[in-house]
Amino acid sequence: MIKKEAAILVHGASYKRGEIAKKLGHPTKTVISPSGISSVYTDSKALEIFLMVYAGLVNKQIVAKLQKFGVNAVGLSGLDGRIWEGKRKGKILIQEEGKTKLLTGNLTGKVEKINVGFIKLLLDNGFCPVICPPAISYKNEIINVDNDRAIAVMAKELGVKKLVLLFEAPGFLRDPDDESTLISHIKKEKVDEYLKFAAGRMKKKILGIREAIEAGVEEIYLGDGRIKNPISLALQGKGTVIS
Amino acid sequence: MIKKEAAILVHGASYKRGEIAKKLGHPTKTVISPSGISSVYTDSKALEIFLMVYAGLVNKQIVAKLQKFGVNAVGLSGLDGRIWEGKRKGKILIQEEGKTKLLTGNLTGKVEKINVGFIKLLLDNGFCPVICPPAISYKNEIINVDNDRAIAVMAKELGVKKLVLLFEAPGFLRDPDDESTLISHIKKEKVDEYLKFAAGRMKKKILGIREAIEAGVEEIYLGDGRIKNPISLALQGKGTVIS
Repeated sequence: MIKKEAAILVHGASYKRGEIAKKLGHPTKTVISPSGISSVYTDSKALEIFLMVYAGLVNKQIVAKLQKFGVNAVGLSGLDGRIWEGKRKGKILIQEEGKTKLLTGNLTGKVEKINVGFIKLLLDNGFCPVICPPAISYKNEIINVDNDRAIAVMAKELGVKKLVLLFEAPGFLRDPDDESTLISHIKKEKVDEYLKFAAGRMKKKILGIREAIEAGVEEIYLGDGRIKNPISLALQGKGTVIS
Repeated sequence: MIKKEAAILVHGASYKRGEIAKKLGHPTKTVISPSGISSVYTDSKALEIFLMVYAGLVNKQIVAKLQKFGVNAVGLSGLDGRIWEGKRKGKILIQEEGKTKLLTGNLTGKVEKINVGFIKLLLDNGFCPVICPPAISYKNEIINVDNDRAIAVMAKELGVKKLVLLFEAPGFLRDPDDESTLISHIKKEKVDEYLKFAAGRMKKKILGIREAIEAGVEEIYLGDGRIKNPISLALQGKGTVIS
């Protein structure tokens, strides 16, 4: 017997997005902030592709798979019912060819507010929300947002105690190019000390994890999303456990 | 003051789907049944494009627009929460080059069941469901389905009394190529007599309307979706009223 616990699934689709964006002749463009954090530049065409791949293709494929397992999944973007709401960033500073430049027209933002009532309504009625970006801005713009930040805000507002994060690595690696350098346990008070090992997108994840811990999350399991039974194995401590 | 009534929005995206399908090198293929009804052939690649354009791009663009108008819209495909459930058709007969052929691998079906509880939960809590195909089969396959049939089943199960149908014409035309031949009123008992004027996809719509009337719908407004304020104008009788 599998014990049923209320669960929320949050997903990305960046690899698939890159693939489709290329096919549609509008390849994904990455920009680097002055502090070295990379993110995707989202103009209106990129946002259309984003909606197609995240909220359309990947979200619904996950929903169909969960339905097969008997989970009554409901796929939603952050727009739906204003689940994820926040501020549009507007202009951002980027680092390009050794110079700091101002970039406009970027349709991105940061989740600050959650529709707690709607999520609870779904959970209380036995549904499993499957959520992905984009979110909605206070001015009703569609904005691309980071999952990691959104998860931290959800954790806080919903009182989530346990997080499982899956990605394309066995867990958090001391050297991102060497899978044998897996860190199996991190004390949650010491997450900051590990920031120095985090490169690229992992940096954002660790910042999100720090926010989640500040929000009251007690256990975080980082696991390999490429293997079979990734969630059970992560919960068994096969990846990195932060507690 | 606008009086707020509970409303469900159902949409298609066939034009946009055709456009994206072509760009992705997998143009939409239409097949004709022996009785002359045209439909789209949906293989697994076409289904992926379908998910992207219907459940991703167009669904979320409508949701964002409604949010702008203060309507708390929630975009869903028929898969989500098993809102639209039905039977997969499997093999179908098609008419090609004057011959009747058997077509396999078609991921289509017919909506037979509605998740009434979920739709009511959303309506009772002030949300406006924005629903589009695909649906889910009893065996958890993703199936492309006709909106018109799904609407008729929803009308029956939810006790809907009023339907507004918008398309790319001023209403139901006696001659599809002549917009001056608009039929402004049809008695709901006489819909069958008008089937002979319906060509192509309109035939399906009329069959869906017949089902909706049998299901208890009292007023159906057919209106022009290309103009400003299409719903208000349709309700004012500018298109075809069936009652």
